[in-house]
Amino acid sequence: MTLHPVSSTLIDDLRRLIPADRVSAARADREQHSRDQSAHPAHLPDAVVWVQSTAEVSAVLKYAAARRIPVTAWGAGTSIEGNPIPVQGGIVLNFRQMDKILEIHAHDFQVTVQPGVLYKDMNKILARHGLFFAPDPGANASIGGMLANNAAGIRTVKYGATRDNVLALEAVLADGTVIRTGSRSVKQSAGYDLTHLLVGSEGTLAIITAATLKLAPLPEHFSVATAAFPDVAHAAHAVFELIGAGLEPTALELLDTTAIRVMNTEDGINFPETPHLFMEFNGVNEDALTQTLALAGDICRENEAQQYQSGIGREARSRLWEARHRIFEVHLRYFPGKEYFVSDVSVPISNYPALAAAAEKMLAELEIDGSVLGHAGDGNLHVIGFYHADDAATRDKAFLLNKKLVEMALSLDGTSTGEHGVGLGKRKYMVAEHGASAMAVMRQIKTLFDPHGILNPGKVLNE
Amino acid sequence: MTLHPVSSTLIDDLRRLIPADRVSAARADREQHSRDQSAHPAHLPDAVVWVQSTAEVSAVLKYAAARRIPVTAWGAGTSIEGNPIPVQGGIVLNFRQMDKILEIHAHDFQVTVQPGVLYKDMNKILARHGLFFAPDPGANASIGGMLANNAAGIRTVKYGATRDNVLALEAVLADGTVIRTGSRSVKQSAGYDLTHLLVGSEGTLAIITAATLKLAPLPEHFSVATAAFPDVAHAAHAVFELIGAGLEPTALELLDTTAIRVMNTEDGINFPETPHLFMEFNGVNEDALTQTLALAGDICRENEAQQYQSGIGREARSRLWEARHRIFEVHLRYFPGKEYFVSDVSVPISNYPALAAAAEKMLAELEIDGSVLGHAGDGNLHVIGFYHADDAATRDKAFLLNKKLVEMALSLDGTSTGEHGVGLGKRKYMVAEHGASAMAVMRQIKTLFDPHGILNPGKVLNE
Repeated sequence: MTLHPVSSTLIDDLRRLIPADRVSAARADREQHSRDQSAHPAHLPDAVVWVQSTAEVSAVLKYAAARRIPVTAWGAGTSIEGNPIPVQGGIVLNFRQMDKILEIHAHDFQVTVQPGVLYKDMNKILARHGLFFAPDPGANASIGGMLANNAAGIRTVKYGATRDNVLALEAVLADGTVIRTGSRSVKQSAGYDLTHLLVGSEGTLAIITAATLKLAPLPEHFSVATAAFPDVAHAAHAVFELIGAGLEPTALELLDTTAIRVMNTEDGINFPETPHLFMEFNGVNEDALTQTLALAGDICRENEAQQYQSGIGREARSRLWEARHRIFEVHLRYFPGKEYFVSDVSVPISNYPALAAAAEKMLAELEIDGSVLGHAGDGNLHVIGFYHADDAATRDKAFLLNKKLVEMALSLDGTSTGEHGVGLGKRKYMVAEHGASAMAVMRQIKTLFDPHGILNPGKVLNE
Repeated sequence: MTLHPVSSTLIDDLRRLIPADRVSAARADREQHSRDQSAHPAHLPDAVVWVQSTAEVSAVLKYAAARRIPVTAWGAGTSIEGNPIPVQGGIVLNFRQMDKILEIHAHDFQVTVQPGVLYKDMNKILARHGLFFAPDPGANASIGGMLANNAAGIRTVKYGATRDNVLALEAVLADGTVIRTGSRSVKQSAGYDLTHLLVGSEGTLAIITAATLKLAPLPEHFSVATAAFPDVAHAAHAVFELIGAGLEPTALELLDTTAIRVMNTEDGINFPETPHLFMEFNGVNEDALTQTLALAGDICRENEAQQYQSGIGREARSRLWEARHRIFEVHLRYFPGKEYFVSDVSVPISNYPALAAAAEKMLAELEIDGSVLGHAGDGNLHVIGFYHADDAATRDKAFLLNKKLVEMALSLDGTSTGEHGVGLGKRKYMVAEHGASAMAVMRQIKTLFDPHGILNPGKVLNE
């Protein structure tokens, strides 16, 4: 698929569609939209457009489709697999000015929003209604970005990923046509499920311009617990038993010794430097919560936890989760001047102990600086690994670890990416994960939706 | 799309692919596969094949694709929107001999099965592991049928529909190619979501030959409660408040006076003949359960319930749900010799009181025999209406009611079908529900998957 070189009249053309002050070819603007938070190489777009309406998105796509110009949607730029990097240049559509909360359906536990709204900002407003959107990726991502990557996070163990919490979409097709999918009914059996097809498609099939999301009531009775284990293997085995006991944690996070050490550099955090589980539980009342916490403590101690702390108050809880959410940026500060990779494999919970133990062993054997951590409750494991860009031997070892971890996850009935999406980094594993026949179907779907290949080219599909 | 007339050598051809005793053109076999439990007209297939393996499904599809012969998958024949009626004849693939439980992943709360297994049979086996597959359509449907229609039922209010409980599929494409979708990881962000696209596609895109399902632990502490209301409007308003209070019922069923009267003809059932809610709640322990039941009682009484019974024991609970599950067939006995329709609309819960009250009013005003009932907790409403086939005036009124109910549901942000699927009966509402542009995309997806239109032709899409 060859895309045409961008014409010299691009900016003038776009300014006939969109007010001039929202169309930029300035170097600084292009650089700001050239890379996400991953280590994947930057690539400059030719133009950045700040859209404000579905009609504007449609107008730009109609223009771009006719001229075969790449169009990549941009939310908050917080993804970590290269998902929005405009690797073939063209137009970046920035959605940060399209961030309205269109309607709060409080009685239905639903909200309809534009894609540019940041989820933390949205949740602050929803809290006034006693509600929240549960998928919680840590970074202050945009809802559009979360939809594109099927983002998830520490609350997914209880509430599901973004895909599980979307009821309806408005989206613009590659040729500018606007479609609606799904409905506000929580039950839907009316035809092909376009909603779930578009969620997680990383802006390669259509561009989402509005979404109706499922919300959850803010819990009244909750408590955090932490447990320190002798090694990752014991912690991961406790995870398996906590889930098996049906305790339904609302968060269940694994952090290895290095991750704890990195967190301890943060204000007000001081954990013993051994692998930990951070847990949160809800209860219908304080009694039920106390019983759950006691049972969780028993399970942790049976798995040789030396320390189990529960009944952690609201303030310490906030500090804990904030530190957990900042862990990626804190790692970058802790290992300054280095390149990094972030693995994102996920397996069935019964295979989590094997995966986590292997990850810990690989890091040690390959002598790579980094941490093993993850949303353990749903089988998701991250390794954040660091290396010097100019040290070829270490870099090769880092890439080898990432590759071996994916291969291991696939052999354990898992996936190469639990929540970061395919982006640039996971394309090479798609055939191994899905098989050539399923990938051929995905490629045909891409061609159906985007015959000229203008939507976020170079992503998701294998080359 | 023109399908070729079936060749006179069809049976001989099929018997070269499949052992002869599993290929039939006998009139009785063809009649058994000519209609489901709906009132949609029967249509005879040309041949019935009892498949036993994915390879056999693939072989038949390869043969049929080359000759443009329709192929329709058949589970238990319990659907009620005409979904598996072979309206263009051809081959029916009966899956009842492909009913193995391939693997129980008890520690992962998952099971991998062939599509022919009946869900009640499967759940009996899973109960030995303390687990169950929660979507519960009432009829003893096959898992394949449930996947095809995205079936749901009384447990969906808590556990979701079939689509929400599927992790991975094996399916055969129209040309015989076998694909795998998804994985056993509960978190998945790796490419386009083919799993959810195939679920609910009613066998028109591919034929599912294996599925990995999410299971739930059987609850230890549960109790049923019933409440009698002066009218449907009050009952429906109580539903809205029960959901809004976050009580998380595991079942919340509405039955109008006629439905109760019909149920009362069953052994051991004797309710006051007014509209009722049947509820079930889980609790982490008996205390929590008692509190929940008390709160539910308060809400019912505030909505003028004259009678609220809770603490119903295990045996009475079984009798109640069995009677609820048999309600469709009991209705057919109660109104003998009549034709019937079953509406299946669904709306956001805040609009449920308006929808339910309107349905009750329409039945009375149009003087149609029938009941208003539904899986109220998730906004799903059924009207079972009866008429004499040879009484044109009554029949027209029945069809009018069904049409007006769909239009009302759509105007209330809902859907024409919450759980029965599009089949034959809802095709005419697809453009009104999704818009012409989204329907055009669905049609292109159909063409992509099934270029010759051999898979269950005449279903799902508008004409």
